[in-house]
Amino acid sequence: MIIFGIDPGSERTGYGVVEKLPRFKLKWLGHGCIITPRTKSRAERLLFLEKKLSSLLAKTQPDAGAVESLFFFKTLKTAMRVSEARGVALFALAKRKIPAYEFSPLQIKMAITGYGRAEKKQVQYMVKEVLRLEAIPRPDDAADGLAVAIACAFALKG
Amino acid sequence: MIIFGIDPGSERTGYGVVEKLPRFKLKWLGHGCIITPRTKSRAERLLFLEKKLSSLLAKTQPDAGAVESLFFFKTLKTAMRVSEARGVALFALAKRKIPAYEFSPLQIKMAITGYGRAEKKQVQYMVKEVLRLEAIPRPDDAADGLAVAIACAFALKG
Repeated sequence: MIIFGIDPGSERTGYGVVEKLPRFKLKWLGHGCIITPRTKSRAERLLFLEKKLSSLLAKTQPDAGAVESLFFFKTLKTAMRVSEARGVALFALAKRKIPAYEFSPLQIKMAITGYGRAEKKQVQYMVKEVLRLEAIPRPDDAADGLAVAIACAFALKG
Repeated sequence: MIIFGIDPGSERTGYGVVEKLPRFKLKWLGHGCIITPRTKSRAERLLFLEKKLSSLLAKTQPDAGAVESLFFFKTLKTAMRVSEARGVALFALAKRKIPAYEFSPLQIKMAITGYGRAEKKQVQYMVKEVLRLEAIPRPDDAADGLAVAIACAFALKG
């Protein structure tokens, strides 16, 4: 079972792809960060994001999509911009008939570190450990994309 | 010049289409409300919304899209859901290379009634007058869609 994790952002959207193997083992398949061009309008940036996501979904053929939901943010404007990107990410998954699951930062931290108030660094360290990577994935957005994919892998049966 | 106005919502998205004629005259072309099925998941509802919008845009061939931005809301969750729908609306416009403009409720009220704190009913009455309709458009979402299209028509030159 392949899971595609997405951490949506107004400018940067991180993603991570993992495969769930028997006995709760996870295999790293990939990660990255989609940065939408600042020179474009917001609508064009959302189009850009959808195209990139869509092509990654076509390439990785996931069985499930996991999207980080937003609970903390600096300003209301940021929250709205991030939600617009999340809407487009959910749309991209539905377009390919990939079931979409949402996880809050709290759920992700709990799933990965066993502690809901874990620091960002602890989560990143555990992402590296769980996936047996040599280093913490970069940039942070990509590590967050992997984290939500891992949380989804732990939550889903089969 | 044809303008397609969109008032995005988490469940109901109103739209209104107007044509801008010489001397600031406006012609009503249509209005309606897209209601996404409650039985579907959120991702599927966003897909449903995009499909409906996309088919309306194909039919009406607008030169510009006007989307209402959100400044007032009941709960943060609502604001986020509405923003997800707005993200999909902006995406649908960009996909068809239709320039997207955003207007706040304040801008819309100012443009239509000349008063930023106008009541909803005043705005609806003016929508009816400006477009020379026989009655106030129903439902409210559709009237709001027309209102943002009118505000855009007044704001754009040509």
